[in-house]
Amino acid sequence: MSELRWDPLKRSWVIITNGGGRRPRDFFVARQQVDLSLCPFCPGQEAKTPGELFVIRNAGSDNGPGWRVRVIPNKFPALGIEGMLDKRSVGLYDAMNGIGAHEVIVENPDHERSMGEFESAEIVDILRAYRARLLDLRRDVRFRYILIFKNHGVEAGSGIPHSHSQVIALPITPPVAATELMVCREYYERKERCLVCDLLLQERADGRHVIRDDGHFLVYAPFASCFPFEMRIVPVRHGHDFALMTDAELLFLAEALKDSLQRLSQVLHDPPYNFVLHNAPPMHQRLGKPAYWGSLPYDYHWHMEIVPRLTKIAGFEWGTGFYMNPILPEEAARYLREADPSFTL
Amino acid sequence: MSELRWDPLKRSWVIITNGGGRRPRDFFVARQQVDLSLCPFCPGQEAKTPGELFVIRNAGSDNGPGWRVRVIPNKFPALGIEGMLDKRSVGLYDAMNGIGAHEVIVENPDHERSMGEFESAEIVDILRAYRARLLDLRRDVRFRYILIFKNHGVEAGSGIPHSHSQVIALPITPPVAATELMVCREYYERKERCLVCDLLLQERADGRHVIRDDGHFLVYAPFASCFPFEMRIVPVRHGHDFALMTDAELLFLAEALKDSLQRLSQVLHDPPYNFVLHNAPPMHQRLGKPAYWGSLPYDYHWHMEIVPRLTKIAGFEWGTGFYMNPILPEEAARYLREADPSFTL
Repeated sequence: MSELRWDPLKRSWVIITNGGGRRPRDFFVARQQVDLSLCPFCPGQEAKTPGELFVIRNAGSDNGPGWRVRVIPNKFPALGIEGMLDKRSVGLYDAMNGIGAHEVIVENPDHERSMGEFESAEIVDILRAYRARLLDLRRDVRFRYILIFKNHGVEAGSGIPHSHSQVIALPITPPVAATELMVCREYYERKERCLVCDLLLQERADGRHVIRDDGHFLVYAPFASCFPFEMRIVPVRHGHDFALMTDAELLFLAEALKDSLQRLSQVLHDPPYNFVLHNAPPMHQRLGKPAYWGSLPYDYHWHMEIVPRLTKIAGFEWGTGFYMNPILPEEAARYLREADPSFTL
Repeated sequence: MSELRWDPLKRSWVIITNGGGRRPRDFFVARQQVDLSLCPFCPGQEAKTPGELFVIRNAGSDNGPGWRVRVIPNKFPALGIEGMLDKRSVGLYDAMNGIGAHEVIVENPDHERSMGEFESAEIVDILRAYRARLLDLRRDVRFRYILIFKNHGVEAGSGIPHSHSQVIALPITPPVAATELMVCREYYERKERCLVCDLLLQERADGRHVIRDDGHFLVYAPFASCFPFEMRIVPVRHGHDFALMTDAELLFLAEALKDSLQRLSQVLHDPPYNFVLHNAPPMHQRLGKPAYWGSLPYDYHWHMEIVPRLTKIAGFEWGTGFYMNPILPEEAARYLREADPSFTL
């Protein structure tokens, strides 16, 4: 079983995913080799994966072809779903069992197209799958945070080319989320306004970082982007929880997401990228916890971040948590704003 | 001029290193192309680099051959040394000019050998250069933190194969350092003991993470290592400041560093790696500042971290600040402890 470990000097958790058996030679070359001749995510190969947890299908029966989106447990999970957390100290350190959920969302039966090439209606199905998994996993009181993210391209960490996203339910709140939740709560307590709403107003008034604004979702290049051509997609209407989105709202998001990914692909020639959903933690964690572990409905504002993986993270960035970005976000925004999203390579 | 920018949602600074002129095509491929036929760091090529800031030499004259270690300004600095910080708000954001120092330490005239292959006496010269630059740069009151680090190998971010380290003096305290300084101060205020000293005692008593212990420096695999085969080198005698090390102490450190890099090279076949010196900030910042910006001499304990770059950082890690490590640190320590550092590939 994997283990979560706490470093008291860095104040951060890490998942040690392997209880033993790895040898140095496993690290000489890339570890995950996939036989592309038989993609496990393609229709007809359902028996090669664990059984589906959620599915949207046109026809056919469980764990067979005919699906439009399919959610399955990760075959090599970083965290296991069965067992107790067994929180414990190891001298000055802390540890707990690696309990959590690790799922794969196979976004489409089509092996060839990537998310930016899907129709908006197809992306709505993917977003409905995200919503369904958030609503289901948050019923498990062991989980403090549910993370939804996507790696596109080998350089972004994707081991399988068939377009997919991942869900990880965690027994701790990860540091980036904890900081955002704390910052938003402090801001709200001081001003009785949402920080993200205020940032959105400023970006719309300024205009230099705006990439796309359809009145429902604002897409912009963050002023202090850590990476070149980074994008943030923010719902204009305040909301703390992606899972409360209606189907109509998901369609607007699908259009914003498709449009953003197409602009990225046009400007940078289909770069590798990651995107991460920044969402409030489950409700049961927002009651009676210290401020930085949770968020009241009015003080957090969910959003998505898209980060193209164009530059290497070197010793400086890793050792300091401090990034160097070689392009002005205003210029990156201009390139992305002026791109024609209907253009295809 | 580059600019430092603050993200109020993430509570972090970024350096925007280019004021304009980058185009998307600059990001299609690796940016830094170096003509290896004429290495700018080799003896005889001194005129190709800016003039030396510090040098240890056997013979010859300034900016000519005969040196053993040579420190020069970075030809493409992330931060410029001239000017005022001009701190300002941009609505809810903050910005300041990209003022700082960015220097290169050419570690040895030999183009072929890497740091693990240098003699201990040669590494002492490099460590003396680190000490000299720390002592010089901290006289500049604009600088809040001086970072010394090394990238070895292309995958670790090194653009030039000739063995070198870098120095960056920053007008802010980077997040990783700020957290360590705050954590150590809080621990000291509560217990009147140093956290790192306590961790060191625990690691020596436990023994499972120890890679090397010569009584002067303890080398161990951190319990919550974020990366496989990560190593921490900690002076056994408490000290907050690397720059206060005597020449005799530098020799013990040189031996520990050489030995650690040799073990790493043997176990993982010369992997790419980064190392970072974690040191207290300059004295003038430790007087009269809020706790997390500084450190009293007794509450911080300097150390070095060596991180081999074996795994990709994917969307999960970047989006959460939360890492997955596929090998137990106890097992990584055992492989490194049992390696024969005198073995050469």
